[in-house]
Amino acid sequence: MAVVHENDLWTYCHDLARQARDAAAELASVSGEVKNSWVLRAASDLRRRAVELVAANEKDLAAAPGFGLSAAQIDRLKLTPAGVEKLAHALHEVVALPDPVGELIEGSVRPNGLEVQKVRVPLGVVFFIYESRPEVTVDAAALCVKSGNAVILRGGKEAAHSNRALHEVLLDAARATGVPEHAVQLVTTTDRDAVGHLLSLSEYITVAIPRGGEGLIRRVVDEARMPVIKHFTGNCHVYVDRSADLAMAERIVVNAKCQRLGVCNAAESLLVHADVAAGFLPEIARRLTDRGIELRGDAATRKLVASAIAASEEDWSTEYLGPILSVKVVGSLDEAIAHINRYGSQHTDAIVATELAACREFARRVDSSAVIINASTRFNDGGQLGLGAEIGISTDKLHARGPCGLKELTTYKYVVYGSGQIRQ
Amino acid sequence: MAVVHENDLWTYCHDLARQARDAAAELASVSGEVKNSWVLRAASDLRRRAVELVAANEKDLAAAPGFGLSAAQIDRLKLTPAGVEKLAHALHEVVALPDPVGELIEGSVRPNGLEVQKVRVPLGVVFFIYESRPEVTVDAAALCVKSGNAVILRGGKEAAHSNRALHEVLLDAARATGVPEHAVQLVTTTDRDAVGHLLSLSEYITVAIPRGGEGLIRRVVDEARMPVIKHFTGNCHVYVDRSADLAMAERIVVNAKCQRLGVCNAAESLLVHADVAAGFLPEIARRLTDRGIELRGDAATRKLVASAIAASEEDWSTEYLGPILSVKVVGSLDEAIAHINRYGSQHTDAIVATELAACREFARRVDSSAVIINASTRFNDGGQLGLGAEIGISTDKLHARGPCGLKELTTYKYVVYGSGQIRQ
Repeated sequence: MAVVHENDLWTYCHDLARQARDAAAELASVSGEVKNSWVLRAASDLRRRAVELVAANEKDLAAAPGFGLSAAQIDRLKLTPAGVEKLAHALHEVVALPDPVGELIEGSVRPNGLEVQKVRVPLGVVFFIYESRPEVTVDAAALCVKSGNAVILRGGKEAAHSNRALHEVLLDAARATGVPEHAVQLVTTTDRDAVGHLLSLSEYITVAIPRGGEGLIRRVVDEARMPVIKHFTGNCHVYVDRSADLAMAERIVVNAKCQRLGVCNAAESLLVHADVAAGFLPEIARRLTDRGIELRGDAATRKLVASAIAASEEDWSTEYLGPILSVKVVGSLDEAIAHINRYGSQHTDAIVATELAACREFARRVDSSAVIINASTRFNDGGQLGLGAEIGISTDKLHARGPCGLKELTTYKYVVYGSGQIRQ
Repeated sequence: MAVVHENDLWTYCHDLARQARDAAAELASVSGEVKNSWVLRAASDLRRRAVELVAANEKDLAAAPGFGLSAAQIDRLKLTPAGVEKLAHALHEVVALPDPVGELIEGSVRPNGLEVQKVRVPLGVVFFIYESRPEVTVDAAALCVKSGNAVILRGGKEAAHSNRALHEVLLDAARATGVPEHAVQLVTTTDRDAVGHLLSLSEYITVAIPRGGEGLIRRVVDEARMPVIKHFTGNCHVYVDRSADLAMAERIVVNAKCQRLGVCNAAESLLVHADVAAGFLPEIARRLTDRGIELRGDAATRKLVASAIAASEEDWSTEYLGPILSVKVVGSLDEAIAHINRYGSQHTDAIVATELAACREFARRVDSSAVIINASTRFNDGGQLGLGAEIGISTDKLHARGPCGLKELTTYKYVVYGSGQIRQ
């Protein structure tokens, strides 16, 4: 697609949105078989065209320093032949997931004989706004189309060449398999105003899903005229109860904090019951410090862990996304729950305990998308929880909470069969 | 509560919201039995205090002409002893509904042994903004608390005395049964700015639900910093297929249009297949005209119905909420579906047909919250579809679509039981 002139930007965005709406209406009549054949075709085309994709990605890599990307960011941007293979493999997993569209969610016959069916249907048009990782382009497109939605993709400018090449593959596969061409569209202008225009087009776009830093999400929330599925911070806790198996607690804390640092379901805060603090904290502190984790503790923690620096009030609500952990000694389960509900981000919180009552109380009262009992916080993930792939993890309570998989990309309609019933 | 001074308004709103948040946390530990006993106590107290409630309502009725209310509006505002009895009866129906909180929506065991449970939980705090009907105060409070939510009620100023008296009953019942006092709070200031303040408090309020005219809903959508469950227009269609049983079609059209004029699920537009137009339209037109309905038709309709006036382009997208029906002759099922998806409001649309393929096609392709086959559009209602009572009918696709009952006032959390699992 040619470069868009500024004065045509509104028309360009409007056309994209209208085409997406029309494609969504067409998709309602496309069978699961055809959608799956598109995904499979895309997978084989990705493999076949890997050289071309890697070449496009190299243009982005060459330009990356000019965008001021850090080494870590460049690493995330990079698409290797092995990365293309991984992408294709992920598409096969999407094919294997059950088609959510048409599921009969509930059904009943009313006393007057009306047969009421609550049937799962696609949302319509998804506007997906994300940052630099090019894999996301393919993942998101596959999930949206498999769930019967048209999608408008707006990736980061740093990945522009990669995204165009990937989109070309998806588009060719659509043409080859009978999926509407406009089911997957890529915003090819890097003009930031395009996002604002698209966010105003609520007559065409059903939902906006931003995936990226807090700044991006806030901007989308502020400008969107349609609902937004949001993914804000993951300030996740592990609470080690006085009844905990301390060896298990150690494994879980180390995994939750260290297995991957920069992710939303990594632990950012450790709460330890006072009764086990002396037996647990010095050892876990040593193990975490060995892995390069800085500890920021309250007074009680610092009495037991000399290396810990003082935590400020702000630390309790901070998502570090890095090698820092805040640590607090709590006097009771109640105090732990109150702390989590006050400072946490309702994302993922874990308890390690052997006492049934403590686990049940924690599960009931901690108001988070996932409450984990005796396992790592890192399991709050679509794949790990059995949803299959995910387009993001929602920190909202409305519509989707936690991982957003295929089902969360759908809504429902009531289909009511009668035999002439009228209302009295 | 004393009149709120303007400079205290922000503090007042903030306190309401914070108290609601705290009450919601407490409600998470209140059993279904206690919540039901509160509803039952409120029902018996309403009956016992009917004289007092009617007296309070009389103050509103006396003030109503001063607010410029029409006779119909005054009628809706009126609370008679029979009305109080009806309210109490409705509460008994809420008690009879299953408690949604704690429902295990889905559960599975993952290959690594993690037990994943998706459990229904309350949303948190509902801010419910409505217009003059005082019954809604009681209905909404009962539905919100039964589903485990705290609610902040903001009724119309025209019903201020009635709402205060009703709220007093609910509050006394809460005190008597152990439901947190702030589970149901009434905004007692009539200052319009209070709504704006409350809509900004997304740290405390989970969702805003406006119920009323389009102006109110637009204002709430514009100002709310939290998600809004919206109920926009109901431009509902009845399509009479060429395969229709015309006697049935007549009954359905008359019911859908005339049974109650001012409601969202009343028919506003009639589409008739050309093959049956000559056999159907003159007779239905006579029956509707006899009931005082004005017909606005396209050219083909006007050829068959002399009394019909010309429909403008605007008529096709108009929700009359009154004695007018737009009428169009369509050449095919396809044309009917395209018309509905273009001009309708995705609320409720019906087909009358005997051909299975036509019914299935209509059900699949009409993108509305309820698609009704061979019955009146008036059945898109929480009670009629088996949800029990409803707090409104959503025209959104996200979270809740169609009637919002107890389930739609909830969200879910994942509760994951492990035995020390860590992520590889």
